[in-house]
This record gives sequence, C-alpha cells and structure tokens, in this order.
Amino acid sequence: MLTLHNYFRSSTSTRLRAALNLKGLDYDYKAYALLKRETQTPEFLSKSPAGLVPVLELEDGTALSQSLAIIEYLEEEHPEPPLLPADAKGRARVRALSYMIACEVHPLNNLRVLQYLTSEFDADDQGKTAWFNHWVHATFAPLETLLAESPDTGTYCHGETPVLADCCLYAQMWNNKRFKVNTSAYPTIERIFTALDTLDAFRKAAPPTQPDAA
Amino acid sequence: MLTLHNYFRSSTSTRLRAALNLKGLDYDYKAYALLKRETQTPEFLSKSPAGLVPVLELEDGTALSQSLAIIEYLEEEHPEPPLLPADAKGRARVRALSYMIACEVHPLNNLRVLQYLTSEFDADDQGKTAWFNHWVHATFAPLETLLAESPDTGTYCHGETPVLADCCLYAQMWNNKRFKVNTSAYPTIERIFTALDTLDAFRKAAPPTQPDAA
Repeated sequence: MLTLHNYFRSSTSTRLRAALNLKGLDYDYKAYALLKRETQTPEFLSKSPAGLVPVLELEDGTALSQSLAIIEYLEEEHPEPPLLPADAKGRARVRALSYMIACEVHPLNNLRVLQYLTSEFDADDQGKTAWFNHWVHATFAPLETLLAESPDTGTYCHGETPVLADCCLYAQMWNNKRFKVNTSAYPTIERIFTALDTLDAFRKAAPPTQPDAA
Repeated sequence: MLTLHNYFRSSTSTRLRAALNLKGLDYDYKAYALLKRETQTPEFLSKSPAGLVPVLELEDGTALSQSLAIIEYLEEEHPEPPLLPADAKGRARVRALSYMIACEVHPLNNLRVLQYLTSEFDADDQGKTAWFNHWVHATFAPLETLLAESPDTGTYCHGETPVLADCCLYAQMWNNKRFKVNTSAYPTIERIFTALDTLDAFRKAAPPTQPDAA
C-alpha cells in the first residue's frame, strides 16, 4: 500500500491526491499540520530533508518528493488512464500549463512565503492578500488566453479527459478560494474547474473532504 | 533551425541553453532585454502570452514555453544523450532535484518578484538580498543533504553524465553569484557546479558568454 504524507489544505497535496485518484491508486493518508510544524520532525525530515509535503512513500520504503515528480512517476508506472497526451507537442503544452501554476503561482503563495512577508516586511493581512492576488492574476490572465484560444482545450485543459494541468488548476482554484480571489475574468478556467469538480477523483481530492480538514 | 527567445541573465534561459547544448542542437539566439520590457510587445506576447522567456520556436512555428516543459520535449524528441535516467525511480529523483530549484528557489527570486518587493513593501537592496539569500538557503540546505547522502550522486547530480537537475543547478549557481550568496556550506553542490563548469555545453550556456551579455 502507498502512504501519502500530506496536508488537506496544501495545494501540492491536492494535485497529487487528484492524480492518485484518477489512476485508481489506494493510499494510506497521513496528515501533517503545517502550522504546528509537524513536517519538521527528525522522522519526517529523514523522508524529505526539505520538510515539505507531499511525500509519497512506496511499498519498498522509497520516499518520493515534489508533487510533479511524483505524478510523472505515477504516469510512468501506472500509465492508465494517461495524464499526459500521446504526442510530444501535446505533452509540452500540458506540462507548460502545469508549470505556469506550479512554478509561477504556487511557490509565491504558500505558507512559508506569506510568513516571511509578515516577519521581514511587516506585511499585514491586506498586504498578503494583495500579494496572493497579484501572482494569481499575473499567471491566470495568460493561462486564460492560452486555454480560451487553443483548439486543444476541451471540457478539460487538454481534450475530454483530465490531465496533469487539470490537477494543478483544480488545486490552485481551491487555494484561490481561501484568499477570495475573484476569477470571474477567467471564464474558461472557471468552466474547467466546474467540470472537474463534478468528477469523483477530484471531489475526493478537495481540501474540505480530507480527514484532517477542520 | 530552432529559434531560442531568451535573455542572457535569465536562469530559466540558462538551463534551457545547457540542455540544447547537451543535445547538440543548434539554435538562432534572439535576445530580449527584460529590464526594457522587450517581452511585453504584441509580437512576443503572441508567442508567449505570459511574456516570459525562454520560448523555443520550432521550425513549424510552434512556440514552446516553460523551460522544463521544453527540456522534457527535447528529451522525448532527441533522446540522446539522455537528460533523465533510464529507471522510473531515478527519473523521479532527478525531477525532484530539478523542481526543488525550479519550484522552490527560482520563482521567488526572479526580477518581477524583486520589483514587487520594492514597489509594495518598500524593500531596499539589503532587504532584497536577504530575501534572495533566504530562499536559496531554505532549499540548498536540503538539496545538499540529498546530494551528499545518496549513492546515486556521482560527478554530477545523478551519476557520471549531466542530467536535467544539473542544468537547473548550474543556472541557479550563476544566479546566486549575482546576489553574492555564500554557498560554502554546500560542498557537494559546489563540487558539482565546478565539474559542470568544465564542460563545453555548460560553459557555452553561461550568462557571461551570451551575445547580449553587457
């Protein structure tokens, strides 16, 4: 059995849960409260020196880290259903959409960054909300353009079955809700989120349905 | 002929140049001065709505964006020499090392983020340098642990030939130099950088050797 070390609210955890569910893979759910620094214990750091969730522990004890690296691993070891298209240009498109969220939005808006803004720059709640919104909009505007204008976009980010980019988009949209980001300027993104949110694999990955949700 | 739209100092550009050179692929070099907002023109935005470098334009006009998505594309279309190991766990390791830099360090330290810190939080040069250093050390400490303790680490990040993670590490080290980050606490990372810096593919990708370097 796989063991998923994660946190209900972490968006990298959410995207990995969606991928595991899409692949039909069962896992033991282990929760770590980030605010209580539960990933900073010697035991957790021995699995993941960066002290970050998610970590996927394989049956042989191998601890995989970095959500996108884990999903690529799942894609290679459990190819059905595919989370990347069959053609190289399609895969490049899906990965680029994914990395727009994973490399341009999420890293700027996670907990430890917001904490640093408070401690070092005296950012108040308003300043942090403005920061969060700024980086979402900086990427969601071009993301909307790419999704709205491409014939490759279907019900989901790339055609009629969910792909890696949908896992990232779904998780980011849940993150956006926490900071009350207004995404009405992005009708294609909102439409795709709504479609994903009807699917069991995504509903069961959503933060509020996890065992450690408050 | 491939066309590389990029900027000498951009570390995502540097990692892509290294990958192109390792694959032995020729490209037309097109430079964009980020400080002069040369990626914000309608022509460039039509290739890349996010207005970010690098973009790799294929012979058929397809514009690929996001450096890691482009390198994965190159790996699929030009598999030799490989930039990912042959086994799935090895690939997961190399991708995780790469994403530690690409998702945890680089996004926090690029130009537009530093500009935002100045405009919204009145960060001075000292504050920006502290910010830059903080995020490098937050990831380089666990990265050093992972590299120093794994039997998979060789002359380079994974064995005796450079991989995707080496492209990311090499580019980040050049970025670190600009902000005078002291990396002496990371002897494995420094050793790998020094080894990479003797290779033509990397030397020719380094910021100071590009046509647009000041």
